[in-house]
Amino acid sequence: MNIDGMKCSRCRQPAQHRLPSHNARFCDKCLGIFVRRQAEKAIKQFDMLVPGQKVLVAVSGGKDSLALWQVLLELGYRAEGLHLALELGDGKFGEASLEASQAMAQRLEAPLHLFNMAEMAGFGVQEIAWANKRSFCSVCGTLKRYYLNKACLDLGFEVLATGHHLDDEAARLLGNLVRRHQRYLDNQWPTLEGAPGAFAKKIKPLCRLRGAELKSYAKSQGWSVAKGACPRSKGATLPYYTEAVRMLEERMPGTTINFYLGYLEDKGAPPAKPEMEARCSVCGMPSFAEECTICRFLENTRKRESTKRDALKDQG
Amino acid sequence: MNIDGMKCSRCRQPAQHRLPSHNARFCDKCLGIFVRRQAEKAIKQFDMLVPGQKVLVAVSGGKDSLALWQVLLELGYRAEGLHLALELGDGKFGEASLEASQAMAQRLEAPLHLFNMAEMAGFGVQEIAWANKRSFCSVCGTLKRYYLNKACLDLGFEVLATGHHLDDEAARLLGNLVRRHQRYLDNQWPTLEGAPGAFAKKIKPLCRLRGAELKSYAKSQGWSVAKGACPRSKGATLPYYTEAVRMLEERMPGTTINFYLGYLEDKGAPPAKPEMEARCSVCGMPSFAEECTICRFLENTRKRESTKRDALKDQG
Repeated sequence: MNIDGMKCSRCRQPAQHRLPSHNARFCDKCLGIFVRRQAEKAIKQFDMLVPGQKVLVAVSGGKDSLALWQVLLELGYRAEGLHLALELGDGKFGEASLEASQAMAQRLEAPLHLFNMAEMAGFGVQEIAWANKRSFCSVCGTLKRYYLNKACLDLGFEVLATGHHLDDEAARLLGNLVRRHQRYLDNQWPTLEGAPGAFAKKIKPLCRLRGAELKSYAKSQGWSVAKGACPRSKGATLPYYTEAVRMLEERMPGTTINFYLGYLEDKGAPPAKPEMEARCSVCGMPSFAEECTICRFLENTRKRESTKRDALKDQG
Repeated sequence: MNIDGMKCSRCRQPAQHRLPSHNARFCDKCLGIFVRRQAEKAIKQFDMLVPGQKVLVAVSGGKDSLALWQVLLELGYRAEGLHLALELGDGKFGEASLEASQAMAQRLEAPLHLFNMAEMAGFGVQEIAWANKRSFCSVCGTLKRYYLNKACLDLGFEVLATGHHLDDEAARLLGNLVRRHQRYLDNQWPTLEGAPGAFAKKIKPLCRLRGAELKSYAKSQGWSVAKGACPRSKGATLPYYTEAVRMLEERMPGTTINFYLGYLEDKGAPPAKPEMEARCSVCGMPSFAEECTICRFLENTRKRESTKRDALKDQG
């Protein structure tokens, strides 16, 4: 599927992929080289990994995390996969996600660690959200961060890599600027340092690559990926910022990467290392309060469930 | 034209206008009250004018500047109009702009001062842009600011009011954040202090009102306004940011005003007063360099024109 008789910007063979942000066109092979190089560049630029380091990849089964896993292995890192099943919606999205993750593990001949969030928490996201009168997305995000971190530490990994790409990060940055969330802005950096036994180091090696570039890459690799948005993301506002960034990028190619990397450049330095001396009295994970958010969430959910049970008993 | 049997949020009469950002609906009369109150609020909040003060309104003939002029008079300020003819495009846009401005002056029984930018400069914008190898829009903007300021000082006014509204300011803010133009961000404030004999004080009393709200207001007043975008604005990028802001506002009503006013609130204080001791050796207006940008622009244009004349003579 050659585009308009165009030639690859690297090797002059027929090009299959157009990358307007870089004013480039690539054949399948050179697109792969480009994707690897951009990941390598991000890893160096933001001190993500040392050569050959062990790293756990959060694999959802979508194109981004699958690409990330393969690229990290190709770059010589000892990357293993972690699939955290979320059990949202009707199950089909979850099934496709798991299948795509497992197929990738087979192709890469790399270990994939399976976790289930509802099992770990003892409750589904919806029950926890109801019991704590919080939005589904905010609860899901909080739980995901907690259990991904916990699984990473339990498996003995010091670094957790996620498939967030340039568009994700730029949309988040735009949202934080528009809503003036200074605390989130302070933390916006593609590498967040860890603390032994408390926080895995979090890295986003795809932060220089656009979503469309990773889509082309996944297509060129012939992968079957889990497609579609989360069935429960209706209330989320991030997609609006994603849409705004995409529109600006379409009208002015290169806007996204200049905006995001330029913002980091102006900022100059990563956020300070987390200082978390205190621990949650319940789960032992780092916490500012005596009891961490998750344990508070779960306690409220247990209370609500027992109240419900008592009410049922009274009726019976 | 009542909307869906809705009642005015203020007086409970049938409502004609919907203002999603404020979760309100208004009848014609109450919309007028709302517009005046928002202007009054901005004038107080950002120290724009003292009661009854003399102010010159830059009147383009579009809905925003017409609304501004009327509202300032209604609020008791001694507002006169200034129409700076730009002579862009085929003349029709310019004619409609002048006519709408003159019709408004008659309705308000207020003086309208007429200026012509090409006459003041001695050249059209296009010639100056060519001679200085600059984009049309950037040259037009620079000239407009210079001659509006000059006209204001020549007419003996200390304050110049322009019809920029909330969407304009939010789009400009977004563009400056995305492109990280720190110098422009530093100056983003709806009031810019003047300096006697050098700079008129610049104020934007409509900065709390959305474009759509002013459109409803103009419609409710039955004005014929100059419509459409500038015929030469093809290369401008501001409209893309305007589109992005509008999209975010549609999805999340109230985003624009929270973004813009919140940004100003976080900033806390207006920019420092301009310190311009030096004057242009040619025109005597304030300038950092020995010769100001405008005089340099005009000199380059004169040079280019005389070279062209010489070339024609040689051929002849």
